[in-house]
Amino acid sequence: MKKVAIIMGSDSDLPVVEKAFSVLEEYGVPFEVHVYSAHRTPVEARDFSVNARENGFGAVIAAAGKAAHLAGAIAANTTLPVIGIPVKSSTLDGLDALLSTVQMPSGIPVATVAIDGAANAALLAVQILAVSDEELAKKLADSRAKAAQAVLEKNKLVSEKYNKY
Amino acid sequence: MKKVAIIMGSDSDLPVVEKAFSVLEEYGVPFEVHVYSAHRTPVEARDFSVNARENGFGAVIAAAGKAAHLAGAIAANTTLPVIGIPVKSSTLDGLDALLSTVQMPSGIPVATVAIDGAANAALLAVQILAVSDEELAKKLADSRAKAAQAVLEKNKLVSEKYNKY
Amino acid sequence: MKKVAIIMGSDSDLPVVEKAFSVLEEYGVPFEVHVYSAHRTPVEARDFSVNARENGFGAVIAAAGKAAHLAGAIAANTTLPVIGIPVKSSTLDGLDALLSTVQMPSGIPVATVAIDGAANAALLAVQILAVSDEELAKKLADSRAKAAQAVLEKNKLVSEKYNKY
Amino acid sequence: MKKVAIIMGSDSDLPVVEKAFSVLEEYGVPFEVHVYSAHRTPVEARDFSVNARENGFGAVIAAAGKAAHLAGAIAANTTLPVIGIPVKSSTLDGLDALLSTVQMPSGIPVATVAIDGAANAALLAVQILAVSDEELAKKLADSRAKAAQAVLEKNKLVSEKYNKY
Amino acid sequence: MKKVAIIMGSDSDLPVVEKAFSVLEEYGVPFEVHVYSAHRTPVEARDFSVNARENGFGAVIAAAGKAAHLAGAIAANTTLPVIGIPVKSSTLDGLDALLSTVQMPSGIPVATVAIDGAANAALLAVQILAVSDEELAKKLADSRAKAAQAVLEKNKLVSEKYNKY
Amino acid sequence: MKKVAIIMGSDSDLPVVEKAFSVLEEYGVPFEVHVYSAHRTPVEARDFSVNARENGFGAVIAAAGKAAHLAGAIAANTTLPVIGIPVKSSTLDGLDALLSTVQMPSGIPVATVAIDGAANAALLAVQILAVSDEELAKKLADSRAKAAQAVLEKNKLVSEKYNKY
Amino acid sequence: MKKVAIIMGSDSDLPVVEKAFSVLEEYGVPFEVHVYSAHRTPVEARDFSVNARENGFGAVIAAAGKAAHLAGAIAANTTLPVIGIPVKSSTLDGLDALLSTVQMPSGIPVATVAIDGAANAALLAVQILAVSDEELAKKLADSRAKAAQAVLEKNKLVSEKYNKY
Amino acid sequence: MKKVAIIMGSDSDLPVVEKAFSVLEEYGVPFEVHVYSAHRTPVEARDFSVNARENGFGAVIAAAGKAAHLAGAIAANTTLPVIGIPVKSSTLDGLDALLSTVQMPSGIPVATVAIDGAANAALLAVQILAVSDEELAKKLADSRAKAAQAVLEKNKLVSEKYNKY
Repeated sequence: MKKVAIIMGSDSDLPVVEKAFSVLEEYGVPFEVHVYSAHRTPVEARDFSVNARENGFGAVIAAAGKAAHLAGAIAANTTLPVIGIPVKSSTLDGLDALLSTVQMPSGIPVATVAIDGAANAALLAVQILAVSDEELAKKLADSRAKAAQAVLEKNKLVSEKYNKY
Repeated sequence: MKKVAIIMGSDSDLPVVEKAFSVLEEYGVPFEVHVYSAHRTPVEARDFSVNARENGFGAVIAAAGKAAHLAGAIAANTTLPVIGIPVKSSTLDGLDALLSTVQMPSGIPVATVAIDGAANAALLAVQILAVSDEELAKKLADSRAKAAQAVLEKNKLVSEKYNKY
Repeated sequence: MKKVAIIMGSDSDLPVVEKAFSVLEEYGVPFEVHVYSAHRTPVEARDFSVNARENGFGAVIAAAGKAAHLAGAIAANTTLPVIGIPVKSSTLDGLDALLSTVQMPSGIPVATVAIDGAANAALLAVQILAVSDEELAKKLADSRAKAAQAVLEKNKLVSEKYNKY
Repeated sequence: MKKVAIIMGSDSDLPVVEKAFSVLEEYGVPFEVHVYSAHRTPVEARDFSVNARENGFGAVIAAAGKAAHLAGAIAANTTLPVIGIPVKSSTLDGLDALLSTVQMPSGIPVATVAIDGAANAALLAVQILAVSDEELAKKLADSRAKAAQAVLEKNKLVSEKYNKY
Repeated sequence: MKKVAIIMGSDSDLPVVEKAFSVLEEYGVPFEVHVYSAHRTPVEARDFSVNARENGFGAVIAAAGKAAHLAGAIAANTTLPVIGIPVKSSTLDGLDALLSTVQMPSGIPVATVAIDGAANAALLAVQILAVSDEELAKKLADSRAKAAQAVLEKNKLVSEKYNKY
Repeated sequence: MKKVAIIMGSDSDLPVVEKAFSVLEEYGVPFEVHVYSAHRTPVEARDFSVNARENGFGAVIAAAGKAAHLAGAIAANTTLPVIGIPVKSSTLDGLDALLSTVQMPSGIPVATVAIDGAANAALLAVQILAVSDEELAKKLADSRAKAAQAVLEKNKLVSEKYNKY
Repeated sequence: MKKVAIIMGSDSDLPVVEKAFSVLEEYGVPFEVHVYSAHRTPVEARDFSVNARENGFGAVIAAAGKAAHLAGAIAANTTLPVIGIPVKSSTLDGLDALLSTVQMPSGIPVATVAIDGAANAALLAVQILAVSDEELAKKLADSRAKAAQAVLEKNKLVSEKYNKY
Repeated sequence: MKKVAIIMGSDSDLPVVEKAFSVLEEYGVPFEVHVYSAHRTPVEARDFSVNARENGFGAVIAAAGKAAHLAGAIAANTTLPVIGIPVKSSTLDGLDALLSTVQMPSGIPVATVAIDGAANAALLAVQILAVSDEELAKKLADSRAKAAQAVLEKNKLVSEKYNKY
C-alpha cells in the first residue's frame, strides 16, 4: 500500500497533528512524519516533495499556522494530492492559516480541511488511497456505519433523559 | 479509468464550474456533470452520492455558493474523496461559501479548494486518480513543466521590456 | 398543542442547547430532543424531518457548529419553520456556523438566531406556535412585562448606587 | 387568514424587498407594506408593532441595512414572530446589517434570513402561518416539489450538454 | 453644568462601564447612571431620551453588546450628542456591537468609541461639555499634560533599563 | 457661534466629505475646510489642531481612508471633540479605515461615525454646538420632524401602491 | 549602487506592480523585473533568491495575490530585506494575500506594505538603500518636502473654494 | 554601526517587544528603547523621528496596538525605514492594529511584520543594516543555517518517534 506523509512546519504543531496518526493507524495505512519548514528548511521540504511519489507516497498531509505556506510549497514540488491543515496560532483564530492554505493559484491545488482538522486530513488521505483499494473502501464504509451508530446511541441517551411526551 | 462527477448546486454556477471541464478533457479523464441542490433536491443529491462509487466514480467535485452545504451533503453519503468549490455570490465575496465548505466536522472531510477554484478542483481530482495511474501521473508532470515554461516565457518578455541594467 | 423539536448535531452542543429546554418548559410547550448529525446520520436526520409535521411538530430547532449544515438539511426536508442556532466552536468564534446557517439559498429559509442563542430559538418557537394560540400569546406578553420589570429593578439598584445628583 | 407585514427602513430597500411580495402573492397570503424607520420614525414603528397582533398580523418582516435595528426595534414591541432581512448597502457587503439583525439579546428573538434574502423571509412567514393552516402547508409542499422538478430539468439540460460517457 | 447620562443595556455591562464613572468624577462632571434596554424596556429607554435635554443632560453615553441597538435607539429620540460604547460579549470579540453602533443611517449619528472604550466615552462627553466651558477645557488640557508626563516617565524607566549605548 | 473644521487627508476624499458641507450650511453653522495629511503634512496638521480651540473652532471633523490616522492625529493635539469619518478606499471596503479611526487608546477619543458617513459627522458637530445653543437645538428638532415626515410620505406612497387588503 | 529586484507571481500583477517602476526611476535606483511563481517555478524563484545578494541586489520586492507565498518563498532563500506587496484578486479584497504575506513565522520576516501598495514598496526599497547612501537620503527628504507642498497646494485650492468665513 | 530604535506606544507592550531586544543583542546591533505614544506624546514622538537619522539610527521599530498609529506617525517624520509591529490587544485579535499599521497611504511606507512579531521586526532591522555590512550579512546566513539545523533535529526526533515503516 502507498504511504501517507505527514509534514508539519514546526514541532509545536504536534498536538494538533497527532490526531491524524491514530486515524491512519486505525485504517492500517503506513505513514511517515516529518518536521520541515517551508521557510526555515526550504531545501529539505523541496527534496522531500520532489521525491515523494517515487518514495512510495500516495498523499502528503501538510500542517502549518499563520502564513501557512507549507502545503503550497509541497504542492509546488509534487503532483501527488497534497492535503493542507491550517493550524490555529496565537492570533486571528486560524483565519490567516486557512486563507494561506486554501487560496492557491490555478495549477497547484491544495486539498484544504478545517482549521486544526487533522483527523479529517488523515481520513481524506485514506479516502484517496481507497479509490483504488476496495478493502480500504470497505473499512471506510464500516467506520461510517459505526460513527452513525455512535450518534444514534447519543441520541438514545439524550432522548431518554429529556423527552417526556 | 474511474470517472469524475461534477455536481453544482444551481446552474447559475455553470460559468465558474466550466473551467473544470476543460481541465478534465485535457487529461482525458471521463466526467459527468449534474445539477443537484442539497436543499432543493436532497433525495437526488443523496441517491447520486450513495451510488457514486459503484457507478464508477473515483472522485466527486461539488460547487455551491452562500451556505454551501452541497459538498458536505455529498460527503455525508459517500466515502469517495469529495472536492468542494466555494462559489462567490452577490454578498460576502465567497467567505460564507468557503467556511460552509471547509469547516467540516470530524469524520466527513471535504477537500476544499479556493473560492471559484474550479480548475484546481479538477486538477485535484486528476491527482487523486493519478495516485494509482502512472500514465496520468506522467501527464501531470508534463503539464507542470509546461506551466513553468509558460511563466518563464512571460518572465523573458517582462525582463526584456523593463530590465535596462 | 404542537410540539417543538430540538435537534443538535452532536451531544457536545448540549450545554448550549439546554437553555432552550427551560424556556419551553416555562411556557408549557411540549418538546422532543434529538442528536442527529447532518453528516454522520444523514438518513435519520432526513427521516425525522420528512415526518416532523405529521408527527405533531410545529417547529424544529437545529443547533450545530462549524460548517453548520444541520438546520439547512432539516429545512430541505420539511416545510415547517426551522430555527437555526449557530454554535461557537474552537475556532472562528461562531462566524463559520453563523454564515453556514443563515446564508441559505432561495426556497429553503432557516430562521437564524444569534450565535449560541438557544434561549431565543426556543422563544421564537413559542412565538410561532402563539400565532394561532391566544393563551400562549398572553404568556409571551406576560413574560415580556416581567423581563421589563427585571430591567427596571436593576435600574433602580444601579441608580441608587451611583446617582448622587 | 392572518396578514403578513413587510416593513422596510427606507424606500431605497424596495428593490430588495419586492421579491417578498411575489412570494406572498403566490401563496395567497395577504400582506401590508410600510416604510418605517427605527431611527427616523421611532414612534410610528413602535405604534405599528404594538398593535400588529390585534390588527390581524401573524408575522412581521423587517428589512434594513447598515446598523439594521429595525427588526429588533419591532421585535421589542410585539411578541409576534419578527423576520429580519439584512440589506446589503454601499460598504461591508451586508455584514454590518447581518450582525445587527441576528445578534439579538436573550428575550427578543429576530428570525434572521440571508443578506438580501427577501424571498426566503416571505417563505418563512408563509411557513409560520402554515403551522396551523393545512391548506397553506399543502401549497408549500407543492412548491417544494415544483422547485425540485425545476432543478432536475436543469440537471437534464446540463447532463445532455456535457455528459459524453 | 449640564449632566451626562450613562445608560447600559444590561447590568452585566457594569464592569466595562464603571471606567466612565471615575473619569467623570475626575472632571467634576455630574452624571446619572441607568439600566435601560432598547429591546426589553423600549418605553423607558425612549422616555428617558425624549426628556434628556430638558432634564439637564448635555450628552448621553450608551453601552451595549451584540446587536447593540441602545445608542441608536436613544439617538433616535433625542438630538443631544449620543456616545456609543460597543461592548465585547461572548462571541465575535465586539465586532457585532461595533458595527451595530457605528454604522448608523444618515440623520441619526452615534459618536462611537472603541470596543469597551468607556473611559474615552466619558472623556468625549467632557470634551463636548467643554466646548462652552473654559474651565473644563483647561482641566482637559491639564490632564493631557499629565498623561504625557506619565508616558515620559515610563520612557525614562524603560530607557534606563534597556539603553546601553 | 463656534466654527466647525472639516479636514480631509487627501482631496480625493472630497466627494465623500462634501455631504458634510450642505448639512452645516443647512444649519447655518460656519465651517472651514482643509486638506491636511497626518502623514504627508504632519506639521501643518498638528499646527492646525493645537490652535483650533483658540481659533474659534468648536469641533473638528476628520476624514481619511486606509490606515486612517488623521482623526487620531488631530485628537492628539487638541481637546476639542474630534469626529472621525472612515473613508472607503479601493480595498477592504472601509473596514481598515473604521478600525484605524475608532479603536483609539484611552485618553484620546475620536467620535467615529459610519464609513463614508459625512452627513452624520456634520450633524454630530451641530449637535455638539447645540448643547449650549438653544436655537440650534430647536433647528435640530425641526429637522428631525421633517425627516420623520419624509419617511411617512414615502410610507404613504408605498402603502398606496402595494397594500390591497 | 545596489539594485532592487521586483518579482511578481504572475504577469497579471503587472498593472499593480508598474507603479513601483516609476518610483525607482524617479530616485535613479537600478532595478530588475521578473516573473517567477513560488508555485509554478519554484526552482527559478529559489535560484534567483539564493543568488540575489551576490548578484548585486540590495532588496527584493515580491508581489502576489490570493495565497501569496512568493515573498515568503523568496525570504526563505535570501537574507536580503524582502518587501511583500499583497495583490487584490477577484475575491476577498486582498485580505487573503495580506495575511499570507504578513503573518510570517519567526526567523523569516517579510516587510509587508498595503494591499496593492507597489509605490510604497519601491519607496521602502529606496529607504533601505538610503540607510548607507546620503545622496539617496537627501532625495527622499526632498521628495517628502515636495509631497507636503502638493498637499498644501490642494489645501489652498480647497480652502479658497469652500471657506467663506 | 548604525543603531536601531525600538519605540513602543505604551510600556504594556513591553512583553511583546522584548523579543526584539535579544535578537538585536544576538547580532551585536546597538539599539535604543523608548516609550513614546503617537497620541499622548505626539511632540516627543515627532522630535525623536525628525532627528533619528542624524542621531545615528539606521532603522526604527514601532510597536502599538488597537488604532496603531505609532509606526505611521514616526514614518511621517523620518525617511529611515520604519518597521511596524501590530500588537494584539483585548479585542479583535490584533486585526485592528494590523490594518492600522500596514494600510499606509502612498508616500509613507511602513514595513509591517506579523501581529506580535517583534523577533522578526528586529531581524528585518538587522537585514536592513546588513545590506551594506558584509559581516552582519554573514551572521544572518549563519543564523539561518543554525535555524535550519534546529528544524532538522526536531525532524529527526519526530521521525524516530513516529516513523515505523
